[in-house]
Amino acid sequence: MGGRFITLEGGEGAGKTTQARLLAEAIRAAGLEAVETREPGGEAGAEAIRGLLVTGAPGRWEPLAETLLHYAARVQHVARVIRPALERGAWVVSDRFADSTAVYQGDGQGVEAAAIAAIHRATLGDVAPDLTLILDLPVEQGLARAAARSARNRYERFDHAFHARIREGFLRRAASEPKRCVVIDAARPAEAVAAAIRAAVAERLGLVLPAAA
Amino acid sequence: MGGRFITLEGGEGAGKTTQARLLAEAIRAAGLEAVETREPGGEAGAEAIRGLLVTGAPGRWEPLAETLLHYAARVQHVARVIRPALERGAWVVSDRFADSTAVYQGDGQGVEAAAIAAIHRATLGDVAPDLTLILDLPVEQGLARAAARSARNRYERFDHAFHARIREGFLRRAASEPKRCVVIDAARPAEAVAAAIRAAVAERLGLVLPAAA
Repeated sequence: MGGRFITLEGGEGAGKTTQARLLAEAIRAAGLEAVETREPGGEAGAEAIRGLLVTGAPGRWEPLAETLLHYAARVQHVARVIRPALERGAWVVSDRFADSTAVYQGDGQGVEAAAIAAIHRATLGDVAPDLTLILDLPVEQGLARAAARSARNRYERFDHAFHARIREGFLRRAASEPKRCVVIDAARPAEAVAAAIRAAVAERLGLVLPAAA
Repeated sequence: MGGRFITLEGGEGAGKTTQARLLAEAIRAAGLEAVETREPGGEAGAEAIRGLLVTGAPGRWEPLAETLLHYAARVQHVARVIRPALERGAWVVSDRFADSTAVYQGDGQGVEAAAIAAIHRATLGDVAPDLTLILDLPVEQGLARAAARSARNRYERFDHAFHARIREGFLRRAASEPKRCVVIDAARPAEAVAAAIRAAVAERLGLVLPAAA
Protein backbone atom coordinates (compact mmCIF):
# COMPACT_ATOMS: atom_id res chain seq x y z
CA MET A 1 0.00 0.00 0.00
CA GLY A 2 1.49 3.34 -1.08
CA GLY A 3 1.77 6.38 1.15
CA ARG A 4 -1.07 8.72 1.97
CA PHE A 5 -1.15 12.37 3.04
CA ILE A 6 -3.32 13.11 6.09
CA THR A 7 -3.76 16.58 7.60
CA LEU A 8 -5.21 17.62 10.96
CA GLU A 9 -6.91 20.98 11.05
CA GLY A 10 -8.84 23.11 13.52
CA GLY A 11 -8.61 26.10 15.83
CA GLU A 12 -6.30 26.73 18.77
CA GLY A 13 -6.35 24.09 21.53
CA ALA A 14 -8.23 21.48 19.46
CA GLY A 15 -5.61 18.83 20.23
CA LYS A 16 -4.10 18.58 16.74
CA THR A 17 -0.52 18.08 17.94
CA THR A 18 -1.46 15.29 20.35
CA GLN A 19 -3.66 13.58 17.78
CA ALA A 20 -1.00 13.85 15.05
CA ARG A 21 1.42 12.05 17.35
CA LEU A 22 -1.11 9.34 18.29
CA LEU A 23 -2.06 8.80 14.65
CA ALA A 24 1.59 8.54 13.53
CA GLU A 25 2.22 6.02 16.33
CA ALA A 26 -0.78 3.94 15.26
CA ILE A 27 0.42 3.94 11.63
CA ARG A 28 3.84 2.74 12.77
CA ALA A 29 2.21 0.08 14.95
CA ALA A 30 0.49 -1.13 11.76
CA GLY A 31 3.97 -1.67 10.26
CA LEU A 32 4.08 1.38 7.96
CA GLU A 33 6.45 4.35 7.87
CA ALA A 34 4.83 7.50 9.29
CA VAL A 35 6.27 11.01 8.98
CA GLU A 36 4.81 13.34 11.61
CA THR A 37 5.21 16.99 10.69
CA ARG A 38 3.60 20.41 11.15
CA GLU A 39 2.88 23.79 9.60
CA PRO A 40 3.97 26.45 9.51
CA GLY A 41 7.31 24.63 9.67
CA GLY A 42 8.36 21.02 9.24
CA GLU A 43 11.60 21.97 7.44
CA ALA A 44 14.57 24.16 8.42
CA GLY A 45 13.68 27.20 6.29
CA ALA A 46 9.98 26.79 6.99
CA GLU A 47 10.65 26.75 10.75
CA ALA A 48 12.55 30.05 10.36
CA ILE A 49 9.49 31.49 8.64
CA ARG A 50 7.31 30.07 11.44
CA GLY A 51 9.31 32.20 13.86
CA LEU A 52 8.18 35.32 11.98
CA LEU A 53 4.53 34.19 12.04
CA VAL A 54 3.88 32.95 15.57
CA THR A 55 5.70 35.72 17.47
CA GLY A 56 5.09 39.46 17.73
CA ALA A 57 1.99 41.62 17.74
CA PRO A 58 -1.22 40.49 15.98
CA GLY A 59 -0.91 43.46 13.58
CA ARG A 60 2.71 42.73 12.65
CA TRP A 61 1.84 41.50 9.15
CA GLU A 62 -0.49 42.58 6.40
CA PRO A 63 -2.91 39.64 5.97
CA LEU A 64 -1.74 39.17 2.39
CA ALA A 65 1.93 39.18 3.40
CA GLU A 66 1.07 36.62 6.08
CA THR A 67 -0.61 34.46 3.41
CA LEU A 68 2.56 34.59 1.30
CA LEU A 69 4.77 33.70 4.27
CA HIS A 70 2.61 30.64 4.97
CA TYR A 71 2.87 29.58 1.32
CA ALA A 72 6.65 30.15 1.26
CA ALA A 73 6.97 27.82 4.24
CA ARG A 74 4.56 25.35 2.60
CA VAL A 75 6.53 25.22 -0.65
CA GLN A 76 9.66 24.31 1.34
CA HIS A 77 7.73 21.75 3.38
CA VAL A 78 6.13 20.06 0.36
CA ALA A 79 9.30 20.01 -1.77
CA ARG A 80 11.71 18.85 0.91
CA VAL A 81 9.63 16.76 3.33
CA ILE A 82 6.11 15.81 2.20
CA ARG A 83 6.72 14.93 -1.44
CA PRO A 84 9.90 12.87 -0.83
CA ALA A 85 8.12 10.96 1.98
CA LEU A 86 5.09 10.15 -0.19
CA GLU A 87 7.35 9.11 -3.07
CA ARG A 88 9.08 6.51 -0.91
CA GLY A 89 5.70 5.19 0.26
CA ALA A 90 5.55 6.77 3.73
CA TRP A 91 2.35 8.04 5.33
CA VAL A 92 2.55 11.75 6.16
CA VAL A 93 0.59 13.21 9.07
CA SER A 94 0.73 17.01 9.16
CA ASP A 95 -0.48 19.20 12.01
CA ARG A 96 -2.06 21.91 9.75
CA PHE A 97 -1.74 22.48 5.98
CA ALA A 98 -3.37 24.66 3.32
CA ASP A 99 -6.85 24.67 4.91
CA SER A 100 -5.37 26.64 7.81
CA THR A 101 -4.30 29.43 5.45
CA ALA A 102 -7.68 29.48 3.69
CA VAL A 103 -9.44 29.74 7.06
CA TYR A 104 -7.05 31.85 9.21
CA GLN A 105 -6.03 34.36 6.53
CA GLY A 106 -9.28 34.13 4.51
CA ASP A 107 -12.17 33.80 6.98
CA GLY A 108 -10.16 35.12 9.93
CA GLN A 109 -8.19 38.02 8.47
CA GLY A 110 -10.26 38.89 5.41
CA VAL A 111 -7.93 38.00 2.52
CA GLU A 112 -10.01 37.32 -0.60
CA ALA A 113 -10.52 33.61 -1.23
CA ALA A 114 -9.68 34.17 -4.91
CA ALA A 115 -6.25 35.61 -4.02
CA ILE A 116 -5.43 32.65 -1.77
CA ALA A 117 -6.61 30.20 -4.43
CA ALA A 118 -4.47 31.94 -7.07
CA ILE A 119 -1.39 31.72 -4.86
CA HIS A 120 -2.13 28.06 -4.14
CA ARG A 121 -2.50 27.23 -7.84
CA ALA A 122 0.67 29.10 -8.82
CA THR A 123 2.77 27.38 -6.18
CA LEU A 124 1.36 23.96 -5.31
CA GLY A 125 -0.92 23.14 -8.25
CA ASP A 126 -2.95 20.07 -7.34
CA VAL A 127 -1.07 18.98 -4.22
CA ALA A 128 -3.84 18.08 -1.73
CA PRO A 129 -4.27 15.82 1.29
CA ASP A 130 -5.93 12.41 0.81
CA LEU A 131 -7.76 12.94 4.09
CA THR A 132 -8.29 16.00 6.28
CA LEU A 133 -9.47 15.58 9.86
CA ILE A 134 -11.08 18.76 11.17
CA LEU A 135 -10.94 18.80 14.96
CA ASP A 136 -13.91 20.86 16.09
CA LEU A 137 -14.72 22.24 19.52
CA PRO A 138 -16.26 25.39 21.04
CA VAL A 139 -14.00 28.45 20.85
CA GLU A 140 -13.93 29.06 24.63
CA GLN A 141 -12.90 25.49 25.32
CA GLY A 142 -10.10 25.59 22.73
CA LEU A 143 -8.67 28.90 23.90
CA ALA A 144 -8.77 27.75 27.54
CA ARG A 145 -6.86 24.59 26.62
CA ALA A 146 -4.34 26.57 24.57
CA ALA A 147 -3.82 29.08 27.39
CA ALA A 148 -3.19 26.27 29.87
CA ARG A 149 -0.41 24.65 27.88
CA SER A 150 2.08 27.45 27.21
CA ALA A 151 2.78 31.10 26.51
CA ARG A 152 0.20 32.39 24.04
CA ASN A 153 1.43 32.46 20.46
CA ARG A 154 0.55 35.31 18.12
CA TYR A 155 -2.62 33.70 16.76
CA GLU A 156 -3.94 32.99 20.24
CA ARG A 157 -3.78 36.75 20.89
CA PHE A 158 -6.28 37.55 18.13
CA ASP A 159 -9.75 38.43 19.46
CA HIS A 160 -12.69 36.14 20.18
CA ALA A 161 -14.56 37.12 16.99
CA PHE A 162 -11.53 36.00 14.98
CA HIS A 163 -11.57 32.56 16.59
CA ALA A 164 -15.32 32.27 16.06
CA ARG A 165 -14.78 32.95 12.32
CA ILE A 166 -12.06 30.27 12.32
CA ARG A 167 -14.40 27.63 13.72
CA GLU A 168 -17.14 28.50 11.24
CA GLY A 169 -14.62 28.62 8.39
CA PHE A 170 -13.35 25.11 9.06
CA LEU A 171 -16.90 23.72 9.29
CA ARG A 172 -17.88 25.42 6.02
CA ARG A 173 -14.76 24.05 4.35
CA ALA A 174 -15.54 20.53 5.55
CA ALA A 175 -19.07 20.84 4.20
CA SER A 176 -17.81 22.01 0.80
CA GLU A 177 -15.31 19.14 0.42
CA PRO A 178 -16.99 16.15 2.09
CA LYS A 179 -14.96 13.55 0.20
CA ARG A 180 -11.67 14.84 1.60
CA CYS A 181 -12.78 16.18 5.00
CA VAL A 182 -14.14 14.55 8.16
CA VAL A 183 -15.25 16.66 11.14
CA ILE A 184 -14.18 15.13 14.45
CA ASP A 185 -15.78 16.19 17.75
CA ALA A 186 -12.68 17.26 19.66
CA ALA A 187 -14.44 18.21 22.91
CA ARG A 188 -14.06 14.63 24.17
CA PRO A 189 -11.10 12.99 25.97
CA ALA A 190 -8.04 12.44 23.77
CA GLU A 191 -8.51 8.66 23.50
CA ALA A 192 -12.08 9.05 22.25
CA VAL A 193 -10.89 11.57 19.65
CA ALA A 194 -8.08 9.19 18.62
CA ALA A 195 -10.60 6.36 18.20
CA ALA A 196 -12.78 8.57 15.97
CA ILE A 197 -9.70 9.43 13.89
CA ARG A 198 -8.77 5.74 13.52
CA ALA A 199 -12.34 5.02 12.40
CA ALA A 200 -12.12 7.79 9.76
CA VAL A 201 -8.78 6.46 8.47
CA ALA A 202 -10.26 2.96 8.17
CA GLU A 203 -13.39 4.16 6.42
CA ARG A 204 -11.81 6.71 4.06
CA LEU A 205 -8.38 5.20 3.35
CA GLY A 206 -8.95 1.50 4.07
CA LEU A 207 -6.22 1.26 6.70
CA VAL A 208 -7.22 -0.46 9.93
CA LEU A 209 -5.13 0.88 12.80
CA PRO A 210 -4.56 -0.74 16.19
CA ALA A 211 -5.72 1.11 19.32
CA ALA A 212 -2.86 2.54 21.42
CA ALA A 213 -1.26 -0.04 23.76
CA MET B 1 3.15 67.96 -8.93
CA GLY B 2 2.08 64.65 -7.34
CA GLY B 3 4.47 61.93 -6.22
CA ARG B 4 6.09 59.43 -8.52
CA PHE B 5 7.48 55.95 -7.94
CA ILE B 6 11.00 55.37 -9.29
CA THR B 7 12.89 52.07 -9.00
CA LEU B 8 16.57 51.31 -9.53
CA GLU B 9 17.36 47.82 -10.79
CA GLY B 10 20.41 45.84 -11.86
CA GLY B 11 22.86 43.15 -10.79
CA GLU B 12 25.23 43.10 -7.84
CA GLY B 13 27.68 46.03 -7.59
CA ALA B 14 25.88 48.18 -10.15
CA GLY B 15 25.77 51.13 -7.75
CA LYS B 16 22.02 51.13 -7.09
CA THR B 17 22.31 52.07 -3.40
CA THR B 18 24.61 55.03 -4.11
CA GLN B 19 22.46 56.22 -7.00
CA ALA B 20 19.23 55.88 -5.00
CA ARG B 21 20.74 58.14 -2.34
CA LEU B 22 21.98 60.70 -4.90
CA LEU B 23 18.63 60.73 -6.68
CA ALA B 24 16.69 61.20 -3.43
CA GLU B 25 19.02 64.07 -2.48
CA ALA B 26 18.49 65.73 -5.86
CA ILE B 27 14.70 65.42 -5.50
CA ARG B 28 14.91 67.04 -2.07
CA ALA B 29 17.15 69.77 -3.48
CA ALA B 30 14.35 70.45 -5.98
CA GLY B 31 12.06 71.13 -3.03
CA LEU B 32 10.08 67.88 -3.05
CA GLU B 33 9.70 65.14 -0.44
CA ALA B 34 11.74 62.05 -1.34
CA VAL B 35 11.42 58.66 0.39
CA GLU B 36 14.52 56.52 -0.17
CA THR B 37 13.87 52.84 0.42
CA ARG B 38 14.99 49.37 -0.64
CA GLU B 39 13.96 45.79 -1.29
CA PRO B 40 13.88 43.24 0.04
CA GLY B 41 13.10 45.36 3.12
CA GLY B 42 12.12 48.97 3.63
CA GLU B 43 9.70 48.13 6.48
CA ALA B 44 10.19 46.34 9.82
CA GLY B 45 8.60 43.02 8.84
CA ALA B 46 10.09 43.16 5.36
CA GLU B 47 13.56 43.70 6.82
CA ALA B 48 13.07 40.56 8.97
CA ILE B 49 12.23 38.65 5.78
CA ARG B 50 15.31 40.18 4.12
CA GLY B 51 17.40 38.54 6.84
CA LEU B 52 16.12 35.14 5.69
CA LEU B 53 16.90 35.92 2.04
CA VAL B 54 20.36 37.49 2.04
CA THR B 55 22.04 35.15 4.54
CA GLY B 56 22.76 31.42 4.44
CA ALA B 57 23.69 28.99 1.69
CA PRO B 58 22.62 29.62 -1.93
CA GLY B 59 20.49 26.43 -1.82
CA ARG B 60 18.69 27.37 1.39
CA TRP B 61 15.38 28.11 -0.35
CA GLU B 62 13.34 26.51 -3.09
CA PRO B 63 13.24 29.15 -5.86
CA LEU B 64 9.44 29.31 -5.58
CA ALA B 65 9.59 29.77 -1.79
CA GLU B 66 12.14 32.52 -2.34
CA THR B 67 9.75 34.20 -4.79
CA LEU B 68 6.97 34.12 -2.17
CA LEU B 69 9.27 35.54 0.52
CA HIS B 70 10.16 38.45 -1.77
CA TYR B 71 6.47 39.10 -2.43
CA ALA B 72 5.60 38.88 1.28
CA ALA B 73 8.21 41.56 1.97
CA ARG B 74 6.95 43.59 -1.01
CA VAL B 75 3.33 43.53 0.17
CA GLN B 76 4.46 44.94 3.54
CA HIS B 77 6.64 47.54 1.83
CA VAL B 78 3.92 48.71 -0.58
CA ALA B 79 1.13 48.81 2.02
CA ARG B 80 3.07 50.49 4.80
CA VAL B 81 5.70 52.65 3.08
CA ILE B 82 5.31 53.13 -0.68
CA ARG B 83 1.56 53.64 -1.00
CA PRO B 84 1.25 56.04 1.99
CA ALA B 85 4.19 58.08 0.65
CA LEU B 86 2.72 58.35 -2.85
CA GLU B 87 -0.68 59.27 -1.40
CA ARG B 88 0.78 62.25 0.44
CA GLY B 89 2.57 63.36 -2.73
CA ALA B 90 6.11 62.21 -1.95
CA TRP B 91 8.51 60.83 -4.55
CA VAL B 92 9.60 57.28 -3.75
CA VAL B 93 13.01 55.97 -4.84
CA SER B 94 13.41 52.24 -4.26
CA ASP B 95 16.66 50.29 -4.56
CA ARG B 96 15.07 47.20 -6.27
CA PHE B 97 11.40 46.24 -6.71
CA ALA B 98 9.39 43.62 -8.62
CA ASP B 99 11.73 43.48 -11.65
CA SER B 100 14.38 42.00 -9.35
CA THR B 101 12.10 39.07 -8.51
CA ALA B 102 11.19 38.51 -12.16
CA VAL B 103 14.87 38.48 -13.09
CA TYR B 104 16.60 36.86 -10.07
CA GLN B 105 14.00 34.16 -9.38
CA GLY B 106 12.77 33.85 -12.98
CA ASP B 107 15.79 34.19 -15.29
CA GLY B 108 18.32 33.42 -12.54
CA GLN B 109 16.71 30.56 -10.62
CA GLY B 110 14.30 29.16 -13.19
CA VAL B 111 10.89 29.93 -11.67
CA GLU B 112 8.29 30.03 -14.45
CA ALA B 113 7.45 33.60 -15.51
CA ALA B 114 3.74 32.70 -15.42
CA ALA B 115 3.94 31.69 -11.74
CA ILE B 116 5.68 34.95 -10.80
CA ALA B 117 3.14 36.96 -12.81
CA ALA B 118 0.23 35.13 -11.11
CA ILE B 119 1.65 35.88 -7.66
CA HIS B 120 2.18 39.53 -8.64
CA ARG B 121 -1.40 39.88 -9.92
CA ALA B 122 -2.90 38.21 -6.84
CA THR B 123 -0.97 40.41 -4.43
CA LEU B 124 -0.12 43.77 -6.01
CA GLY B 125 -2.51 44.03 -8.94
CA ASP B 126 -1.45 46.98 -11.08
CA VAL B 127 1.04 48.60 -8.69
CA ALA B 128 4.01 49.51 -10.93
CA PRO B 129 6.82 52.06 -10.96
CA ASP B 130 6.42 55.21 -13.05
CA LEU B 131 10.07 54.90 -14.05
CA THR B 132 12.60 52.07 -13.72
CA LEU B 133 16.30 52.79 -14.14
CA ILE B 134 18.23 49.64 -15.04
CA LEU B 135 21.87 50.07 -14.09
CA ASP B 136 23.85 47.89 -16.46
CA LEU B 137 27.49 46.86 -16.34
CA PRO B 138 29.60 43.77 -17.13
CA VAL B 139 29.17 40.92 -14.63
CA GLU B 140 32.88 40.77 -13.67
CA GLN B 141 32.98 44.47 -12.92
CA GLY B 142 29.83 44.33 -10.78
CA LEU B 143 30.95 41.31 -8.75
CA ALA B 144 34.40 42.86 -8.18
CA ARG B 145 32.78 46.05 -6.89
CA ALA B 146 30.38 44.09 -4.68
CA ALA B 147 33.23 41.96 -3.28
CA ALA B 148 35.24 45.08 -2.42
CA ARG B 149 32.52 46.71 -0.38
CA SER B 150 31.54 44.11 2.24
CA ALA B 151 31.03 40.48 3.17
CA ARG B 152 29.36 38.70 0.27
CA ASN B 153 25.63 38.33 0.68
CA ARG B 154 23.82 35.14 -0.36
CA TYR B 155 23.07 36.28 -3.93
CA GLU B 156 26.69 37.27 -4.53
CA ARG B 157 27.62 33.64 -3.79
CA PHE B 158 25.58 32.31 -6.73
CA ASP B 159 27.76 31.27 -9.68
CA HIS B 160 28.92 33.36 -12.63
CA ALA B 161 26.37 31.85 -15.04
CA PHE B 162 23.60 33.01 -12.67
CA HIS B 163 24.85 36.59 -12.75
CA ALA B 164 25.18 36.48 -16.55
CA ARG B 165 21.50 35.42 -16.76
CA ILE B 166 20.62 38.31 -14.42
CA ARG B 167 22.27 40.88 -16.69
CA GLU B 168 20.57 39.47 -19.79
CA GLY B 169 17.25 39.26 -17.95
CA PHE B 170 17.28 42.93 -16.98
CA LEU B 171 18.19 44.01 -20.52
CA ARG B 172 15.40 41.85 -21.98
CA ARG B 173 12.95 43.31 -19.49
CA ALA B 174 13.98 46.86 -20.40
CA ALA B 175 13.51 46.08 -24.08
CA SER B 176 10.03 44.64 -23.46
CA GLU B 177 8.84 47.67 -21.47
CA PRO B 178 10.57 50.66 -23.06
CA LYS B 179 8.02 53.19 -21.81
CA ARG B 180 8.74 52.36 -18.17
CA CYS B 181 12.41 51.35 -18.33
CA VAL B 182 15.63 53.19 -19.15
CA VAL B 183 18.96 51.35 -19.33
CA ILE B 184 21.80 53.34 -17.75
CA ASP B 185 25.45 52.52 -18.45
CA ALA B 186 26.71 51.98 -14.90
CA ALA B 187 30.34 51.25 -15.79
CA ARG B 188 31.12 54.95 -15.56
CA PRO B 189 32.05 57.05 -12.48
CA ALA B 190 29.17 57.65 -10.05
CA GLU B 191 28.66 61.31 -11.01
CA ALA B 192 28.32 60.44 -14.71
CA VAL B 193 25.76 57.77 -13.82
CA ALA B 194 23.90 60.25 -11.61
CA ALA B 195 23.81 62.77 -14.48
CA ALA B 196 22.35 60.14 -16.81
CA ILE B 197 19.70 59.33 -14.17
CA ARG B 198 18.79 63.01 -13.79
CA ALA B 199 18.47 63.27 -17.58
CA ALA B 200 16.11 60.25 -17.62
CA VAL B 201 13.97 61.72 -14.83
CA ALA B 202 13.71 65.03 -16.73
CA GLU B 203 12.84 63.34 -20.02
CA ARG B 204 10.43 60.71 -18.71
CA LEU B 205 8.80 62.43 -15.72
CA GLY B 206 9.29 66.10 -16.52
CA LEU B 207 11.18 66.90 -13.34
CA VAL B 208 14.40 68.88 -13.80
CA LEU B 209 16.82 68.08 -10.98
CA PRO B 210 19.84 70.12 -9.87
CA ALA B 211 23.29 68.52 -10.08
CA ALA B 212 24.79 67.63 -6.69
CA ALA B 213 26.47 70.54 -4.92
